[in-house]
Amino acid sequence: MKLNPWYVTGLTEGEGCFTISFNYRAKLNVKIETRPSFSISLCKDDLELTKKIYEYFRCGGIRYSRRDRTYKYETRSIKDIMKKIIPHFEKYPLKGRKKEDYRRFKWICEQIYRNYHLNRERLKEIIKEAYKMNPGGKRRYKEEELLRVLGEVKE
Amino acid sequence: MKLNPWYVTGLTEGEGCFTISFNYRAKLNVKIETRPSFSISLCKDDLELTKKIYEYFRCGGIRYSRRDRTYKYETRSIKDIMKKIIPHFEKYPLKGRKKEDYRRFKWICEQIYRNYHLNRERLKEIIKEAYKMNPGGKRRYKEEELLRVLGEVKE
Repeated sequence: MKLNPWYVTGLTEGEGCFTISFNYRAKLNVKIETRPSFSISLCKDDLELTKKIYEYFRCGGIRYSRRDRTYKYETRSIKDIMKKIIPHFEKYPLKGRKKEDYRRFKWICEQIYRNYHLNRERLKEIIKEAYKMNPGGKRRYKEEELLRVLGEVKE
Repeated sequence: MKLNPWYVTGLTEGEGCFTISFNYRAKLNVKIETRPSFSISLCKDDLELTKKIYEYFRCGGIRYSRRDRTYKYETRSIKDIMKKIIPHFEKYPLKGRKKEDYRRFKWICEQIYRNYHLNRERLKEIIKEAYKMNPGGKRRYKEEELLRVLGEVKE
């Protein structure tokens, strides 16, 4: 039986994560790659529920994180995020603090979808917004470092 | 605006907790007090959402846990649990691993509601079921200790 859409939003409020990560990519003109991810992490006993989330969204995949001992449902494709994930949360909106992360995530995904993340100036704005998300989370690079690298890029 | 019932169930799947705790009470014939609790813990930025949960269930209360830096919605009254909490989860059931904790919680609350927890033999069964719940959680007393004390009680 398919999950109720509001149940999926409630579960996301607690266990979901909207993130934008950055990596250095020498081949790119802007040298920095922008990667969106929507995920829901559940404990290792909840594989069946994780599968139901996958069936609900009909995109992304499931992987096991040995470090956290969790199953993670995750979608990284910008097309799937724009066509399946964001429409869900527009129709069945989050109610708590996570709403703010979602709002920034949505804005950034819209920029990526239009390829604005390949433009140096626009990417700066994306990075600034991304670093306001998930304040407690870990980051591979500091915001200042990314902005400094971007400042050295020749266009 | 009132929360959607399925949203409340989804949020509970991630952040909710069904527990039965035990304490020594010399005044009781069985010497052990049985206390049920249903709670949902949210981070300190989610006070507004915690209030909405309170408005949804129309029972229990909100308290701040300085240790965990969370707001906790909690209901401990057996009457409220039987009349408001359990009917919600019967109509909008949990989908994951937490369903098992709920099933045991419901059975124990039914026993308490009938005052069966004041009977030594029945209380033994309640303790055994309670200690199968939330396997990762902390317990003040060991199951063996409670059962041993109960074995010494004269009826």
